[in-house]
Amino acid sequence: MNDDLFRNTLTELSAIGKDPNGGLTRLLFTESWMRAQQALKAAFEKAGLAARFDEAGNLYGRAQGTEKGTVLTGSHVDTVRNGGHLDGQYGIVAGFAAIKRLLEKHGPPKKSLEVVSFAEEEGSRFPYVFWGSKNVVGIADRDKVREAKAADGATMPEAMRALGFDFEKAPEPRKDIDAFVEAHIEQGGVLEKLGRQIGIVTAIVGQKRYVVRLKGKANHAGTTPMGMRLDAMECSARCMVALLDEARREGDPLVLTFGRIELKPGVGNVVPGEALFSVDTRHTDRAVLDRFAGRIEATIRETAEKAGIACEIERVMDEPPVPMDTGLTALFGEVCKAGNLSHHVMHSGAGHDCQIMAGAYPSAMLFVPSINGISHNPEENTEFGDLLAGVDALEGMLHRLAYR
Amino acid sequence: MNDDLFRNTLTELSAIGKDPNGGLTRLLFTESWMRAQQALKAAFEKAGLAARFDEAGNLYGRAQGTEKGTVLTGSHVDTVRNGGHLDGQYGIVAGFAAIKRLLEKHGPPKKSLEVVSFAEEEGSRFPYVFWGSKNVVGIADRDKVREAKAADGATMPEAMRALGFDFEKAPEPRKDIDAFVEAHIEQGGVLEKLGRQIGIVTAIVGQKRYVVRLKGKANHAGTTPMGMRLDAMECSARCMVALLDEARREGDPLVLTFGRIELKPGVGNVVPGEALFSVDTRHTDRAVLDRFAGRIEATIRETAEKAGIACEIERVMDEPPVPMDTGLTALFGEVCKAGNLSHHVMHSGAGHDCQIMAGAYPSAMLFVPSINGISHNPEENTEFGDLLAGVDALEGMLHRLAYR
Repeated sequence: MNDDLFRNTLTELSAIGKDPNGGLTRLLFTESWMRAQQALKAAFEKAGLAARFDEAGNLYGRAQGTEKGTVLTGSHVDTVRNGGHLDGQYGIVAGFAAIKRLLEKHGPPKKSLEVVSFAEEEGSRFPYVFWGSKNVVGIADRDKVREAKAADGATMPEAMRALGFDFEKAPEPRKDIDAFVEAHIEQGGVLEKLGRQIGIVTAIVGQKRYVVRLKGKANHAGTTPMGMRLDAMECSARCMVALLDEARREGDPLVLTFGRIELKPGVGNVVPGEALFSVDTRHTDRAVLDRFAGRIEATIRETAEKAGIACEIERVMDEPPVPMDTGLTALFGEVCKAGNLSHHVMHSGAGHDCQIMAGAYPSAMLFVPSINGISHNPEENTEFGDLLAGVDALEGMLHRLAYR
Repeated sequence: MNDDLFRNTLTELSAIGKDPNGGLTRLLFTESWMRAQQALKAAFEKAGLAARFDEAGNLYGRAQGTEKGTVLTGSHVDTVRNGGHLDGQYGIVAGFAAIKRLLEKHGPPKKSLEVVSFAEEEGSRFPYVFWGSKNVVGIADRDKVREAKAADGATMPEAMRALGFDFEKAPEPRKDIDAFVEAHIEQGGVLEKLGRQIGIVTAIVGQKRYVVRLKGKANHAGTTPMGMRLDAMECSARCMVALLDEARREGDPLVLTFGRIELKPGVGNVVPGEALFSVDTRHTDRAVLDRFAGRIEATIRETAEKAGIACEIERVMDEPPVPMDTGLTALFGEVCKAGNLSHHVMHSGAGHDCQIMAGAYPSAMLFVPSINGISHNPEENTEFGDLLAGVDALEGMLHRLAYR
């Protein structure tokens, strides 16, 4: 029974790297990460797939087709610290189960069907993201990551060597992939709110992130009249309110988040002399994102200047939006209609392996709902029926792509 | 030469409890605190004053008068952690020098002249403020402070016993004091900005402090549309901007400070689910302060409710304004005019021993300018000429009060 394969594989994987409090922690190239990849390899092999690692740590399970070309599906096996049991591995297990169903129903495919368990997507452990998919595409920057140390002191070459991988051997970029499709949990509350089973992703948002440092003057909270203050908290709050108002006027899909703020000295009876805050803004349209980013920088500079406060704005991330393949997203729509799966066409507000793969191959992704929109948290969950609906949609998609 | 007495005593005291980086740290009933009190006791005795400790740790230096009644001056000997070399001890040394000058010029006073080095005013070490002056007045709450532990683990009774003081022996409240006058640095930038040497304090502000806790929902910064957020940082910023605008409309002497904010989880790519921030507001008029405090609470509750965010507002301080004795402040004005000292009539935005003393005796205080308004900081300083102008004013005041 194929739902058992899905359920059992997910259950088995969810026990690997389990935290005492119920979350999952599988950082790249750690012991729990390796056990998860090995469990998947054994499961792939048991299901009759040809399993292999590449030198970057990606794991593949392959059903050879009768014609050339490969249809690839999958997601990442690493997790954030104390993460949930679906972010990443759901897409691997769903892809694996969908392929196994197809093989049982229809025999060998025309195009080879492959499931990939990407080594890393979360930036877990090392200061580098998308190590897995970037190695498939052939764009991993080895010079950038070679010397970087994890919080535990290890470098990536050392951590890989301990597990039998060779950092310096870059895998050959895959040239045989005709399409990549990824299933993932939404990590937001849109599908749940709309009561839909499947989200068809049309684009992955571009992101710009900043660290803003404001420098005013720390002063006694009692003896400094309001007119003599250079209050870095006041300036921060004014920047935030002005920009949040602008963001709300701009409307969806623009999002703007101030997730972190630190004050100096940060005590109740001193006017804050310094503030550091983060800015995270995302949109699916590059022109809109660039324009809004310009407003962010200008508003902060104007607000600070008016207050007599010095400011530094450091851009720490600048990722353009990535549109999904329109042919594949249309096909996802057909699949949902044919399978009577309720669906919603939407964007992804989070980054995914699919945005890297889309640079090299026709790519698309689907979402299943997240209960209460929760993710990166032990409470991350999805109704089991919705998880299976995602497998159904993936099966329909892979069938159309690999058997026709 | 009496300026030497002032200069040398200040220099000697400033070397006791000196931090490696130049600040002063003399927490209540520590070894450096004891050395400072002992150095003062020796200086008082050398100058011919009768010196004694009370059981609370306050030190007095007394010149006996020919009639009954006492005119008291002084300030506190403790400092904040890594504080400056004037906050507190300036008022002791200035009072000491002024008394010594008067004795040299005019011989024994009619009313006894006394300088006090209060044990504590800063809330340094133990969670209790004004231990020194409250013991003079007879309102120290021993039950409240008995069990409280310092960060170093000691209780006040233990710390006192080690230095030979008996916590349980409350000093007899002083009934003989006709007037108390305190000199202190301004700790703000008003006198410097106006170019005046002396601030004559008409009132010490009332203070209300709050800790506000907002509870929204932590969400993914990319996948949660703006309309689905319960953003505790946004709500905090909106409360702050609305209240700062109101505070500025209200005008001086109202001040409003948000000195501390903490977000949970506090990372750039997560919408903050929780925020904790401090509110500190002060005014010299009790009715205005009460009215504005009502606006603070109402605005926070309205803003949070509108955003769907739960809020808790905890009032952690509620001290009413304390007016200074009008006769004594008028006399300070005469002294400044007679001495050709430029002065400014102002309020104190910070708390001082004088606000406790004013509850029991006619009391008044004077300020000398703070360079750049800096205080509670190793950079705390005052032009030496301004420090001496303060001694001059104090001398004139004590002369009028004790010799006429």
